[in-house]
Amino acid sequence: MAKTGQYDPKPEHKFSFGLWTVGNRGRDPFGDAVRESIGPAALVDLLGEVGVWGVNLHDNDLVPIDATPSQRDQIVREFKKACQRNGIVVPMATVSLFFHPVFRDGAFTANDPEVRGYAIQKTLRAMDLGAELGAKIFVLWAGRDGAETDGCRRADIAVKRMREAINYLCEYNIEKKYGYKFALEAKPNEPRGDIYFATTGHYLGLIPTLDHPEMVGLNPEVAHETMAGLNFMHGVAQAWEAGKLFHIDLNDQAPGRYDQDLRFGSHNLKAAFWLVKFLEDVGYNGSRHFDAHAGLHAHVSDFERESQAMECRQRDPDNSEAG
Amino acid sequence: MAKTGQYDPKPEHKFSFGLWTVGNRGRDPFGDAVRESIGPAALVDLLGEVGVWGVNLHDNDLVPIDATPSQRDQIVREFKKACQRNGIVVPMATVSLFFHPVFRDGAFTANDPEVRGYAIQKTLRAMDLGAELGAKIFVLWAGRDGAETDGCRRADIAVKRMREAINYLCEYNIEKKYGYKFALEAKPNEPRGDIYFATTGHYLGLIPTLDHPEMVGLNPEVAHETMAGLNFMHGVAQAWEAGKLFHIDLNDQAPGRYDQDLRFGSHNLKAAFWLVKFLEDVGYNGSRHFDAHAGLHAHVSDFERESQAMECRQRDPDNSEAG
Amino acid sequence: MAKTGQYDPKPEHKFSFGLWTVGNRGRDPFGDAVRESIGPAALVDLLGEVGVWGVNLHDNDLVPIDATPSQRDQIVREFKKACQRNGIVVPMATVSLFFHPVFRDGAFTANDPEVRGYAIQKTLRAMDLGAELGAKIFVLWAGRDGAETDGCRRADIAVKRMREAINYLCEYNIEKKYGYKFALEAKPNEPRGDIYFATTGHYLGLIPTLDHPEMVGLNPEVAHETMAGLNFMHGVAQAWEAGKLFHIDLNDQAPGRYDQDLRFGSHNLKAAFWLVKFLEDVGYNGSRHFDAHAGLHAHVSDFERESQAMECRQRDPDNSEAG
Amino acid sequence: MAKTGQYDPKPEHKFSFGLWTVGNRGRDPFGDAVRESIGPAALVDLLGEVGVWGVNLHDNDLVPIDATPSQRDQIVREFKKACQRNGIVVPMATVSLFFHPVFRDGAFTANDPEVRGYAIQKTLRAMDLGAELGAKIFVLWAGRDGAETDGCRRADIAVKRMREAINYLCEYNIEKKYGYKFALEAKPNEPRGDIYFATTGHYLGLIPTLDHPEMVGLNPEVAHETMAGLNFMHGVAQAWEAGKLFHIDLNDQAPGRYDQDLRFGSHNLKAAFWLVKFLEDVGYNGSRHFDAHAGLHAHVSDFERESQAMECRQRDPDNSEAG
Repeated sequence: MAKTGQYDPKPEHKFSFGLWTVGNRGRDPFGDAVRESIGPAALVDLLGEVGVWGVNLHDNDLVPIDATPSQRDQIVREFKKACQRNGIVVPMATVSLFFHPVFRDGAFTANDPEVRGYAIQKTLRAMDLGAELGAKIFVLWAGRDGAETDGCRRADIAVKRMREAINYLCEYNIEKKYGYKFALEAKPNEPRGDIYFATTGHYLGLIPTLDHPEMVGLNPEVAHETMAGLNFMHGVAQAWEAGKLFHIDLNDQAPGRYDQDLRFGSHNLKAAFWLVKFLEDVGYNGSRHFDAHAGLHAHVSDFERESQAMECRQRDPDNSEAG
Repeated sequence: MAKTGQYDPKPEHKFSFGLWTVGNRGRDPFGDAVRESIGPAALVDLLGEVGVWGVNLHDNDLVPIDATPSQRDQIVREFKKACQRNGIVVPMATVSLFFHPVFRDGAFTANDPEVRGYAIQKTLRAMDLGAELGAKIFVLWAGRDGAETDGCRRADIAVKRMREAINYLCEYNIEKKYGYKFALEAKPNEPRGDIYFATTGHYLGLIPTLDHPEMVGLNPEVAHETMAGLNFMHGVAQAWEAGKLFHIDLNDQAPGRYDQDLRFGSHNLKAAFWLVKFLEDVGYNGSRHFDAHAGLHAHVSDFERESQAMECRQRDPDNSEAG
Repeated sequence: MAKTGQYDPKPEHKFSFGLWTVGNRGRDPFGDAVRESIGPAALVDLLGEVGVWGVNLHDNDLVPIDATPSQRDQIVREFKKACQRNGIVVPMATVSLFFHPVFRDGAFTANDPEVRGYAIQKTLRAMDLGAELGAKIFVLWAGRDGAETDGCRRADIAVKRMREAINYLCEYNIEKKYGYKFALEAKPNEPRGDIYFATTGHYLGLIPTLDHPEMVGLNPEVAHETMAGLNFMHGVAQAWEAGKLFHIDLNDQAPGRYDQDLRFGSHNLKAAFWLVKFLEDVGYNGSRHFDAHAGLHAHVSDFERESQAMECRQRDPDNSEAG
Repeated sequence: MAKTGQYDPKPEHKFSFGLWTVGNRGRDPFGDAVRESIGPAALVDLLGEVGVWGVNLHDNDLVPIDATPSQRDQIVREFKKACQRNGIVVPMATVSLFFHPVFRDGAFTANDPEVRGYAIQKTLRAMDLGAELGAKIFVLWAGRDGAETDGCRRADIAVKRMREAINYLCEYNIEKKYGYKFALEAKPNEPRGDIYFATTGHYLGLIPTLDHPEMVGLNPEVAHETMAGLNFMHGVAQAWEAGKLFHIDLNDQAPGRYDQDLRFGSHNLKAAFWLVKFLEDVGYNGSRHFDAHAGLHAHVSDFERESQAMECRQRDPDNSEAG
């Protein structure tokens, strides 16, 4: 696919996508998958075709949780080849601490010390994997760390357990010389009734209490803050101002409902405008990661329109009139 | 299990449960199932053990969508036997118009006339099944009939298609002498960005425009109205006053988030109190259907506590102080 | 002010404004008024200057609640003169059943029969006033008819009282040959914790139970449905399809918060687009009433931009690409 | 009023009330005041009668904004006498940076440097007043510091201005040896569309970046976090764990709507239970400030029931069953 137009994505735009979104099968709580499964290497080929810069992944997006070491190595080899032949980098890696039933009560904050220990170990392995792929950002989303009733644990204990876990990961990062920056991702609820560290603000409050605060920042996500009806850009701006905007998840969402992961700008164009304007004005230079799922009837990738829209906004000399 | 205490459920309480809740496997958008699958007959045995009056079902809770006619008949025979040996009735039946990928764009309001036709036919078969099991209430939840963007169809067209479908079902009900009352179930969103007929009120507005309005009423659900932050009891009261409270789904929910299907009374006890008081005061005599899923770590049935709580509220001479 | 451009408002656009919005002083629960009071006639002059078609009013926007009959007549005379000299009509009138402390427990549904009687009488006088000014639409917003705790009255009693009140108003309308259409305006909450008839749907359910259903329809308001996170256009479409879209209040709102009455299209342009497209596609021919308050620092009227925006959308041959 | 029962409030409970709540006149955006104005000294007498420990105030709750210095001194003298004769202390003072029209665009973050300067000066005078009354907690609620459109200022500039203002106030506190702890109070919206520092978490993120972080903590309010649908107790627990729970505002609220300031525990008893249990379990020893307004028809003080309810919960040996 030739990329010659002014709206074509270029590497310096740092447009990245996650295997879990481009490969999303459209399953939801009320319905079965509507799309076939596509393997990681094939997804990378698709991304390469449309000029994407980076691909991100959870450990189990790439390596099944029950893969043997040799299977794992084989999978990683093929994935790296796919990245190389498409000129695509892996800027960010993360870990699934939510899909397996063992995390039903949480991961880093679970009451069972064996689960907490397993969550840590699983994360270390995911860090190894990401490092092998060249990732320099490691995202942590503690999606199961929350409660439906606060009888399960005292909420300040959850804070302490989260701190302890992150401190441990930082030590490992130092010891292994991986050079990761950790980017914490907040969400107010779903899949738990209330998730600890509900917003970008709450994580900004945690970071200064860590052993290595300089190593830890934020990965704000449009949909997550919007679920709580908050002004996403305000949280992003506070994170930026604190030097903590390490990564960003661009998508969209109607407030006060389930996590929609809509295409960036598709629900509230005005909010998207002010966000893009802010990022451009301050010179944000990290990944522009589009964390949207295709709608259930989508047959084509929507990201081209996204990247065009972003380009378009950047170039408009006259955006000062919006309001 | 002996049932002699004053808080034991009795048939006159009309406590009913759905196969899809007691058999719920605890899968969610971010995680795999946490419980084993249990067959319909075994679920009925469990319900019988704890004194439940009625069991409700979607067609495919009982009969797999790809069952052959003889498999279907075999399954139904065994299910009826299980009901008989447990003294449990089937007061309500419904149809899944949301799980299969064919409904990704809706069922009765889908743009593809073949999908609309299939949705109707699937519902007729579900009506046959329910009638065979003795059900007199048929619930319709049009969960996929909605939109993420209103470019997909004009919303008044959706109203017309819904009316046409329900009119057709009413004719079939008359022709077959099934004697069903249809109970429409509203929901504001999820799995669609916005579902048509978002609240009990919206369906109350549709019913008088149907060919057989006397045959059609409501099945309000606590969680669904609460998702939109509405006072559930107010909607129930309007439905009751209009003679349209044909069924009710009791569960609980925090406002402004994903469909939680929490245990009735577990989130907002005050709202549950005023609802139960209303139902008792006006003499509601339909099913008291508990539409809650067990939490992910639940090991025991919670419905006993529910029925006790309801009994307790009924008996309290002093509930006039609440406020 | 010369009106020659293609984006200038014209009478056939039926752009109307309420005295309570253009004269809004910017008081809110946490702050004092930020603008001077302007008299009704002066407001009409301002509207005339910018080419507005119609002006709407509550009884007490024009006539103070404690005016003597002769004061009232004097005020009305001057107002009519102002309308005439500006070529402005009064398409809609309504009644304040919320500002005076006597309505603290509601108006048509209040527990005190004297309050209910007074609310009716006040409404009859407002109908007289509107008729004198030529209004053919009479809006009813029962903003205080709700509850913070449902101990105050049974919610089905509220439904009956509302019905009784509207029936009475219809009889008066017939007797006086005023020829009004009543347009009911729903709102989920504020100033009450929960207002009865929370959405357009709930009123659509009430109307068929009235003595004169043909005389009563809806006045949906963008902000009110959006407060509950509902898709406003879906409710409008259902009202239209039922032949009940008698009036519409155009403004904007972020979901899940206080009533903002923002400028139409200023929060969610996509939702505004689909609404305007729907109204144009179906040929809605009623008032296009802009029910927005100026922001606290506004010095100039924003309605010109509104009317231009609407014109612009109407004329765009290419709006089929939106999504 | 004799105070001998086990549910009577005692000084060690540190139950406090604000002049703005007990003197609240029940005005709202849609209606006029429903109660007479009562002077500060008379309010203190009412609080004394029912055994309250402390009274809190904004500067202008006590001293009108346009009082002369001698009027101010006279008012303060009478107020101190009223406190003394009732054995009531002034644990907390705060400043109104929201009522006067000059703050229409914000106070500490306003674009006009004169407004920012005035906001600082007004706060210094309020600190003088509080110090004179013996207050050791100074609450800051920046209720006007927000936006309806982000064209008004870049959100990171707002962060910087807020920091600068708080740093200045801390210096004054040191210079004057007032010994205040500042308690920052977050709110997501209202009266602004979006208020900067939307949650307790966001302020927790700001504090470590201040010049005197040890001097600054939080004043979380039930209603404010609940407006955004967040679990209030989780935010409180994080603040406590960080050593920053300097004050607390107890009231109640339905999620996703206007600021209701309902009586503590009146909307969601379960949430109130877990909050009280947390505060008691960790040994919180600050003010228990009830920040609720009376409902519009209230004639008697509700706080006795509140204090009883709290006592009751504290004493219940069996609260481990809740959930």
